[in-house]
Amino acid sequence: MLRALIDHPQRSGDPLSLTVNFCAPIAQGDFDLDVRLVKANRSMQHWFVELMQGAAEVATLATAVFAERRPSWSHQPAEFPQTTSFEQTLPYAKAAAPWVKQYDFRFVEGEPKFNAAPNTTPQTAFSKLWIGDRVPRKIDVLSLMSMSDAFFGRIFHARGELVPFGTVSMTTYFHADAADLAAEDIRRVLAVADANIFHKSYGDQTGKLWSPSGRLLATTTQIAYFKA
Amino acid sequence: MLRALIDHPQRSGDPLSLTVNFCAPIAQGDFDLDVRLVKANRSMQHWFVELMQGAAEVATLATAVFAERRPSWSHQPAEFPQTTSFEQTLPYAKAAAPWVKQYDFRFVEGEPKFNAAPNTTPQTAFSKLWIGDRVPRKIDVLSLMSMSDAFFGRIFHARGELVPFGTVSMTTYFHADAADLAAEDIRRVLAVADANIFHKSYGDQTGKLWSPSGRLLATTTQIAYFKA
Repeated sequence: MLRALIDHPQRSGDPLSLTVNFCAPIAQGDFDLDVRLVKANRSMQHWFVELMQGAAEVATLATAVFAERRPSWSHQPAEFPQTTSFEQTLPYAKAAAPWVKQYDFRFVEGEPKFNAAPNTTPQTAFSKLWIGDRVPRKIDVLSLMSMSDAFFGRIFHARGELVPFGTVSMTTYFHADAADLAAEDIRRVLAVADANIFHKSYGDQTGKLWSPSGRLLATTTQIAYFKA
Repeated sequence: MLRALIDHPQRSGDPLSLTVNFCAPIAQGDFDLDVRLVKANRSMQHWFVELMQGAAEVATLATAVFAERRPSWSHQPAEFPQTTSFEQTLPYAKAAAPWVKQYDFRFVEGEPKFNAAPNTTPQTAFSKLWIGDRVPRKIDVLSLMSMSDAFFGRIFHARGELVPFGTVSMTTYFHADAADLAAEDIRRVLAVADANIFHKSYGDQTGKLWSPSGRLLATTTQIAYFKA
């Protein structure tokens, strides 16, 4: 959906925010996108995208903002986390799910541990990990968007078991534009994720994606369904 | 926009997430809402709302998810912040902007200080404050949504001055349903807000709204334009 916007002839500027609402499961195979530029001015564009499969049933909705990012005062209060380097960190070996196989995950903290029985007391939902593409590839906004949803469900960490789980809505803000990303050859990000609450079948996730040099590239949040 | 969804005859369940994209300034006066239920199943609804003024120009877009929140395992890793009580905290007296006059703000930390010249080194963007309605009113999801956007611009705190500023996109997740909110007579929330980055004319904000008893009611994030 983001690629369709980036490639759209009317697009101008770089992605600033993207919210994706997952309405129904997406099957492997063809899909149609209905893309609409709702509003635009000289420096900003507001987009609405619907993904349809089968009998024109909407499976996913997205709203996006693109912006011409002009020079300004810059300040990054968020601090780059203490970490071992990518090279010093062991790859995550237990890649079962197809999405996990797309990535080279290297956990610095909070590697998921799935036990025969759930944790009797909840464990931390915090993770810190390097994420790179399994086939190394320079990071662009498409990678950042995809990596924003590459985290394991926070509830898996807290409970120490896999439970039925699905992202309902997610939002990512991009803090680097195309020029910023082109200026560095970034091939992996340091990613942190955490949860604030699990309640009445829904839990949240917050995350940050950093360049190895300490630049905050994207922040992300999501709300997800679980059954436990 | 949220009220229109709540009052809609097809609505079922409680608000789970709401994303609002501000496309153009909203003038005082009449507006039209175009409300569409995009997808629904037994436990969830996906909505799309457009607010129009004047010659059918879209001024605001929103996507919302409503959900029937079923009992589940509950766990709140986020910790209620240390704070003085509402009664022990001094009201913020410098209410100039109309929106500020709607609220009884009581800063525990990070009261904004506007000086003749901007700070030479950036100050913290973190604030902790009680927010109640100026005319006390029991908190519902409409209050939570409104209070999610009641914070002062983070850049005002960091720079110690008012600069041109506008929210572009904001997302709020509701962690309490109508039954949870009805069970407590909540008339104010403890609110915290912070920023991760200001870069190329855009900065972010993250926030949490807590009940006085320590329940996390909502989490919120936004990306905003600034000129500095």
